[in-house]
Amino acid sequence: MNILVINAGSSSLKYQLYNMETEDVLAKGRVERIGMDSSILTHEVDNQPEVREVSEILDHTTAIKKVLDMLTHKKFGVLRNMSDIQAVGHRVVHGGESFSRSVLVDQAVKLEIRKLFDLAPLHNPAHMMGIAAVEANLPEVPQAVVFDTAFHQTMPPISYLYAIPTVLYSKHKIRRYGFHGTSHDYVSKKAADFLGRPLSELKLITCHIGNGASCAAILYGQSYDTSMGMTPLEGLMMGTRSGDLDPAIVPYTINKEDLTLNEVNSMLNKHSGLLAISGISSDMREVVDAMKEGNEKAKLAFEMYAYRIRKYIGSYVAAMDGVDAIVFTAGVGENSDALRKEVCQGLTFFGVQLSGERNAVRSSEPRRITSDDSKVSVLVVPTNEELLIARDTYNLVLEQHQTITEADSDEQSNEGE
Amino acid sequence: MNILVINAGSSSLKYQLYNMETEDVLAKGRVERIGMDSSILTHEVDNQPEVREVSEILDHTTAIKKVLDMLTHKKFGVLRNMSDIQAVGHRVVHGGESFSRSVLVDQAVKLEIRKLFDLAPLHNPAHMMGIAAVEANLPEVPQAVVFDTAFHQTMPPISYLYAIPTVLYSKHKIRRYGFHGTSHDYVSKKAADFLGRPLSELKLITCHIGNGASCAAILYGQSYDTSMGMTPLEGLMMGTRSGDLDPAIVPYTINKEDLTLNEVNSMLNKHSGLLAISGISSDMREVVDAMKEGNEKAKLAFEMYAYRIRKYIGSYVAAMDGVDAIVFTAGVGENSDALRKEVCQGLTFFGVQLSGERNAVRSSEPRRITSDDSKVSVLVVPTNEELLIARDTYNLVLEQHQTITEADSDEQSNEGE
Repeated sequence: MNILVINAGSSSLKYQLYNMETEDVLAKGRVERIGMDSSILTHEVDNQPEVREVSEILDHTTAIKKVLDMLTHKKFGVLRNMSDIQAVGHRVVHGGESFSRSVLVDQAVKLEIRKLFDLAPLHNPAHMMGIAAVEANLPEVPQAVVFDTAFHQTMPPISYLYAIPTVLYSKHKIRRYGFHGTSHDYVSKKAADFLGRPLSELKLITCHIGNGASCAAILYGQSYDTSMGMTPLEGLMMGTRSGDLDPAIVPYTINKEDLTLNEVNSMLNKHSGLLAISGISSDMREVVDAMKEGNEKAKLAFEMYAYRIRKYIGSYVAAMDGVDAIVFTAGVGENSDALRKEVCQGLTFFGVQLSGERNAVRSSEPRRITSDDSKVSVLVVPTNEELLIARDTYNLVLEQHQTITEADSDEQSNEGE
Repeated sequence: MNILVINAGSSSLKYQLYNMETEDVLAKGRVERIGMDSSILTHEVDNQPEVREVSEILDHTTAIKKVLDMLTHKKFGVLRNMSDIQAVGHRVVHGGESFSRSVLVDQAVKLEIRKLFDLAPLHNPAHMMGIAAVEANLPEVPQAVVFDTAFHQTMPPISYLYAIPTVLYSKHKIRRYGFHGTSHDYVSKKAADFLGRPLSELKLITCHIGNGASCAAILYGQSYDTSMGMTPLEGLMMGTRSGDLDPAIVPYTINKEDLTLNEVNSMLNKHSGLLAISGISSDMREVVDAMKEGNEKAKLAFEMYAYRIRKYIGSYVAAMDGVDAIVFTAGVGENSDALRKEVCQGLTFFGVQLSGERNAVRSSEPRRITSDDSKVSVLVVPTNEELLIARDTYNLVLEQHQTITEADSDEQSNEGE
């Protein structure tokens, strides 16, 4: 079965085509600047040069059409025709309280996702455009939606409630949802495999540290707490997001700088974090390079960033009253040995003994970076959100086939009576 | 030396009169409803019935006059005349970055406190009214100011900076200040005494849990981090304050409920926390009573409240890479054995072994509530912010006397040349 994974943004769209028998990526790419006359489609197939095509792509339906044309292109394509795509899986940022797992798309599901537009105004409407665009181009193909929030729906109320008037929860659904759930789920399972122990016996802290960043306390396989909140703004310091701050700073700044609500949101989401403190970049590699050259602001930004991860790890050790392993994943977590060292060197009281040698190794495989006598293991586990979306989609389609087949055979046996 | 300690609010004023040779409280009381025609002065002297006097008190100067009249009252007073007050110490909530210790009041100090009105609009103007009122009534008496923030001025930038555009710090002084400093300072010293170890070798986590609540990481005697921020809103869940939440909730709620900035501040400071979640009270005793009667909301509020303290303790263990003792203080921290148990029973991984028997003991003395083999000690240390204000004031006045005496003797020796 071939599955197309789509991550649709408001003016961009990423795709990966999976062969699910081998879990190989047959092709991947992205469409940028949707809605403009010089949209760019970038398409990659293993061991072949990247293809770039500039054209007018005014909407998501056209974008999907272009992607399908490319996937079935005589020279650059990997499929004979569109019927070789058996299902499509979409990343959806916000599933609210409605979705605690991935589901196949139907009218009711689309309605629910629409109801959540308020909670994720930048993301969910774009995802819906992606779903509609696939429907228009591939009307017969089943689609699944995989939510960033779903994995965290196991959090208990003490983790997900804010200490604010309860009407804000009942009326406006203001609560902690958490994000990066697909990744926290995936790496916690991988970590259990690596450790050779059942997930149901493990206390894990997973640190998804990319441009966006969140930590999660995974207690016996279930999300118990996580650092992102109602939106992805809360928690860790990120590339351009502030993470935690005194809530009183928001009205104070609105007043002092005469900002609109959109402007303050934009400031905290796009102009804060590593970028604001370093004054250099939202990219950890550039910040670390500047630090190594003696840039003091870069050093401060790096240390703040690590300090906050360390504090979240400590808080989750307390939340679960213990930890068996700490897992780093995503762009920064997988690749910055400097960051992992800065975080872990302050965790010796918990029983973390980092191995400098192991921490320096680069690999695409899960690996341990603590010494053999470290009481708590620290692992690096590469994440793969697209693959998880593909797997969820695959399983949902298989389940549906099975249900239909069972229903058919029930009917047949009924007919036989 | 007798020292009068004043805590002036916008419509109230609390006082305690200390004999500094014995550190006894000679009298204490409060004036409420300042600015109304039925203001109430309540006055207490040890072993005597409380005196209540209702009168018109339209400003702080009149309030101080009434207090002085009462302190020198033939029947209810404890002083022969006003000249028996040798100094006055004021609690001041916000000292910004200007004050890292207590100081005697002069013109420059008053100017600095005025500059901080923006950061503490509810508190600092009221404190200034208290200072002016004392000046008007006791023009010759030295006054000292003791700041809630001063102790935390040792925090490093990684703790006190927010990950937001740095212009907000340089222009508007938006940073973490922390509060309850007088209390964190006092109980950390008391804890070291109790443990019989030098403060300069200890990693302590102090939990000031009253109607307002904050935790602090005290590294080798200095504040390294604390949970309250630019204002007292950040951090732990409190009686009526929300503590931490996704900053995005603030603009979201302003928009959804069409609130003004004052209204959202008021909601988060006065109508949130324990009160909002329990739906019963901001008073922990009432919440615990309701919980014991089976009230589910009270139970949830209690567990959330404790969970957040536990997480802060964990984060500060990570911040300092260790902890020697955890200290509970203030109204709830000193008196609620149920809360201390709920917090500590999740800290066994850190080496905390609570003794149920010791935790149940009530005393006004510092005490240990962990078992003898607990790796980390948990202490209850009653706080006394007024006494610390009196001591700081006493020491500042003595220092000044000494300086003047030295200058005099210098002058004399110069004259002798």
